[in-house]
Amino acid sequence: MHRLYDYLDSGNGYKVRHILRRCGIPYRLVPVDILRGESRTPEFLAKNPNGRIPLLELPDGRLLAESNAILFHLAEGTRYLPGDPFERALVLQWLFFEQYSHEPNIATVRFWVRHGGVDDDKRALVELKRRQGYAALAVMETHLASRKFFVAETFTITDIALYAYTHVAHEGGFDLSPYPAVRAWLDRCTAEPGHVTMAAA
Amino acid sequence: MHRLYDYLDSGNGYKVRHILRRCGIPYRLVPVDILRGESRTPEFLAKNPNGRIPLLELPDGRLLAESNAILFHLAEGTRYLPGDPFERALVLQWLFFEQYSHEPNIATVRFWVRHGGVDDDKRALVELKRRQGYAALAVMETHLASRKFFVAETFTITDIALYAYTHVAHEGGFDLSPYPAVRAWLDRCTAEPGHVTMAAA
Repeated sequence: MHRLYDYLDSGNGYKVRHILRRCGIPYRLVPVDILRGESRTPEFLAKNPNGRIPLLELPDGRLLAESNAILFHLAEGTRYLPGDPFERALVLQWLFFEQYSHEPNIATVRFWVRHGGVDDDKRALVELKRRQGYAALAVMETHLASRKFFVAETFTITDIALYAYTHVAHEGGFDLSPYPAVRAWLDRCTAEPGHVTMAAA
Repeated sequence: MHRLYDYLDSGNGYKVRHILRRCGIPYRLVPVDILRGESRTPEFLAKNPNGRIPLLELPDGRLLAESNAILFHLAEGTRYLPGDPFERALVLQWLFFEQYSHEPNIATVRFWVRHGGVDDDKRALVELKRRQGYAALAVMETHLASRKFFVAETFTITDIALYAYTHVAHEGGFDLSPYPAVRAWLDRCTAEPGHVTMAAA
């Protein structure tokens, strides 16, 4: 059976739990309390030297890190990843956008707000990340203004990945009201048959 | 013919020029001077709403952004991207590592040092990014201590991607002397038949 090393409040972990559920792949959850340093122990670092969750352990013991790499791998051959070469490239384009322009801003601010707050040291950095997070939302708004989903007008792992931290962006103080196309897309994701909520995943 | 919108000092652009050369794909370079805001003009934003280079335009006009997505797409079916599903997943794992843990630290500090220097506003952020950049190099050192290349013991797009900013890390003030396995791997990359230097790409 697959084992998923994860922290339940993580949107990156939620992406992986979401695709595992949608693909009907049974797995055992191994909770890793990142707030207590459990992703930085020698035992965990032996599994992932980068010290991050989620980490997927395959039934044969092989290990795979990076939420979006796991998403792409598990979705291969399913309806959540197109077969057309260029559409697959666009899926990857948006997955890299998510990890470079979206998550480091929106998810990181949410994490700081939820865990320990924002001290003076972090205030300037939070302002920068908030500006960059809104810039990422504006890119999504432009793209979604004329589309139902991110790629190929069908629900893919791109939507799973970008939904994860966008639907909880308000928990980091982001106001989605100026982004109607993003909000309509979030509603379409939630209405998609087989939707798995973060709490249930 | 392919058109590549690029800025020649960009390591992300170098990755794409490197794979285009290795795969023998002719292309026309369209220089975009990011220092003069040319990636933020209405014309460029119409092509890439995220306002970033490199951006690849296919002969039929379709557009693809994000250097590592472009790498993966162009390498499909070549010896630079393995066919084995799990090895492909590991390639993606390291490409996401590069964009999340490596580039935002090592490349960003290099850019600031080379263009305009580090003012008081940025000093704390540079220190943070320097710590995180060295942490990424330590992860690479651990992995490469027992390996020739990142994935499948063969030269892949993972090596092309991580080579791009690692081999110029010193230009951002990073000292690679404590990372002998990384330095030996850089030498192996350079010695690889068909190597394309950043200046020649």
